[in-house]
Amino acid sequence: MKAIILIIGSEFTKGLKQDKNSLFIAKKLFQKGIDIEAIITTSDDIYNIQTFLKIALDKADIVFTSGGLGATSDDLTREAISEAIGVPLIFNEDWLKKLKEDYKKAGLDFTEERKKMAKLPYNAKPIENPIGKALGFIKVLDDVQKAIVALPGVPSEMKAMLKIAFDYLGLKEDKGFVYLFRTYGKSEIKIDELTKDIDKKIINASPKGVDLFIYDNAKEFLENKVAVLRERLGNLIYAEDEIEMEEVVGKLLKEKGYTISTAESSTGGMIATRIVNVPGSSAYFKGSVVSYANEVKENILKVNKEDLEKLGAVSEPVGRQMAEGVKKLLNTDFALSDTGIAGPTGGTKEKPVGLHYIGMATPSETIVEKVIFSGERNDIRLRVSQHALNMLRLYLLKQN
Amino acid sequence: MKAIILIIGSEFTKGLKQDKNSLFIAKKLFQKGIDIEAIITTSDDIYNIQTFLKIALDKADIVFTSGGLGATSDDLTREAISEAIGVPLIFNEDWLKKLKEDYKKAGLDFTEERKKMAKLPYNAKPIENPIGKALGFIKVLDDVQKAIVALPGVPSEMKAMLKIAFDYLGLKEDKGFVYLFRTYGKSEIKIDELTKDIDKKIINASPKGVDLFIYDNAKEFLENKVAVLRERLGNLIYAEDEIEMEEVVGKLLKEKGYTISTAESSTGGMIATRIVNVPGSSAYFKGSVVSYANEVKENILKVNKEDLEKLGAVSEPVGRQMAEGVKKLLNTDFALSDTGIAGPTGGTKEKPVGLHYIGMATPSETIVEKVIFSGERNDIRLRVSQHALNMLRLYLLKQN
Repeated sequence: MKAIILIIGSEFTKGLKQDKNSLFIAKKLFQKGIDIEAIITTSDDIYNIQTFLKIALDKADIVFTSGGLGATSDDLTREAISEAIGVPLIFNEDWLKKLKEDYKKAGLDFTEERKKMAKLPYNAKPIENPIGKALGFIKVLDDVQKAIVALPGVPSEMKAMLKIAFDYLGLKEDKGFVYLFRTYGKSEIKIDELTKDIDKKIINASPKGVDLFIYDNAKEFLENKVAVLRERLGNLIYAEDEIEMEEVVGKLLKEKGYTISTAESSTGGMIATRIVNVPGSSAYFKGSVVSYANEVKENILKVNKEDLEKLGAVSEPVGRQMAEGVKKLLNTDFALSDTGIAGPTGGTKEKPVGLHYIGMATPSETIVEKVIFSGERNDIRLRVSQHALNMLRLYLLKQN
Repeated sequence: MKAIILIIGSEFTKGLKQDKNSLFIAKKLFQKGIDIEAIITTSDDIYNIQTFLKIALDKADIVFTSGGLGATSDDLTREAISEAIGVPLIFNEDWLKKLKEDYKKAGLDFTEERKKMAKLPYNAKPIENPIGKALGFIKVLDDVQKAIVALPGVPSEMKAMLKIAFDYLGLKEDKGFVYLFRTYGKSEIKIDELTKDIDKKIINASPKGVDLFIYDNAKEFLENKVAVLRERLGNLIYAEDEIEMEEVVGKLLKEKGYTISTAESSTGGMIATRIVNVPGSSAYFKGSVVSYANEVKENILKVNKEDLEKLGAVSEPVGRQMAEGVKKLLNTDFALSDTGIAGPTGGTKEKPVGLHYIGMATPSETIVEKVIFSGERNDIRLRVSQHALNMLRLYLLKQN
């Protein structure tokens, strides 16, 4: 089955807002084994919607639309579909009654514009909206054996109603055709080389590492590839799903009953923020000292004044003393630290932009790694936070 | 002039990656007064690329493609364009020579696949790639008075080459048809009400506040609307461009020569991280104490033990003492603090999920605001950080 996703909204074609609905719908369809020919985004213009709907119906078996089902004058998807397929719009009496009651309760007029949210193309199957007011629908075009699934643009409504649509269409099971390995420690090119015998893959690099998507049309083939890659990539893999490094590290800390703190300079609290992103992190995270100014490194973390003056804040001993200082101050089992130059200015020949010392104090030793990252300021800082968390992950795994 | 953007990449149609290039290109085109009929995203399939390129050429005067110009077997845009318009591909000798030298220097073979990055449709104007290796091009179809602009998919390369393409096409000036007000302090519905007499607007709510885009086809109309709204929205506006709250606050602190620190609990360092996002923040930011555990609030920030025990960490006095504690400890002019329940668990009837006390210690007083935010854990935390920074912004503005 071939599908096209039609996203409707002038905010997207004018470049004012990032459409994220198409990504969500595409992923769900792909996981159900449906080929997506295209994602077409067009404006709130009845002529454009009709034009691209006709193109979509010509090129695909099923068209999912999102957007333009609301109560403003810009919401024209219902009318455009009705005109494009030559079928009148009629009221769904049940939904009309529900809307009438809802608006009465809220003390609002039940205007013509609000009424239109209960309209459907003749003989369409309604998809009730469990969150909002716009009714969605599935319209089957019997003569050409095609279908249109019309969903709202509000992400929470779209997501809930897509699920209902899948039920109506008999697409209940995820077929599990996609697998994700999230890796840290090797470049995109290295991961590509390491997987050169693997077809049907997509490699995605970001400051958080390299994501490797594996897909296939048959589950057995996919499972074989997953087993091979799990073995081959080993500890480079930090997650096998859309899981963040801080969740992985948090789980390890919790399992082992360890506590942690951070002493941050370049990252400015980003490592701590990420640790706290995880619900329940109070079980292992005590706190952090962000020592952006040298006086804070010296006065609070007790970094040696002479080292700061002679070697500079961006040096191995300072990274080491920051980690050890916060570990002692906050009385934790582990501590992570960083000191470096995130740029864009402040670099020198000896200490270029991107240079960082990343420290990890453990119950028995302190390890400091020197890294030089490239990229923009905040990408570099994100890389540093990822590297620090990964150091801890590898250390905790080795303890097993 | 009507444009269509054609994004090529199976990672997008399979829902594995968010396409952001179309947003960038659409915004640039819209700002130059070019109407975008549609954004079409299709897979790395030569038949699909041709199909949707032909549709795009039928519906628009100019088609911008992004993606599929690289050296792998999946990169088929060049071939698809050549076949769709019936023109052969030929080598650009200058670029071929440059690539040959580049690969020789890097000690890599100059394979057929790499060579193809120097190919262009016959009589196309090359767009040199200032960052990467894939040559872009503009191909004018004289008989139908249309044009294709082919750009790579790597964002940094696409952006640099789009600029060159605009120069070649004589589209040098931004016509300033769009204006952005970023507001904090009122809901989306309130901003809609406050601007109900303003047409051609797009309202966009996020945890950082409400963005209001105003657009028009004539600059004078737009300027009038901007003047009216600037007056009407007043201090709700924190920026008039794509500027973050931390940049606005940083600029105010720098101008006035003040220093700042933060004491964070629920946000876990997010306020500090955001302050450090701004290059040059060392001029005013000294550091932060993330006191996630109560013992850190008590031992480091000197929050009263009795208050912590009797009133709990999420209370007005604790928020107050955190701000005052870190201001004294790090010796700064101002300090921001927060303590609250980000959820999803930990709420009670008296202290529900979302409840926060946000503190600001100034040179003369300490102000604590009680807020209750709804949403997911990390949205709530982002709201708290935005609210804290906005408190400081309003205070510093009042000082003028």
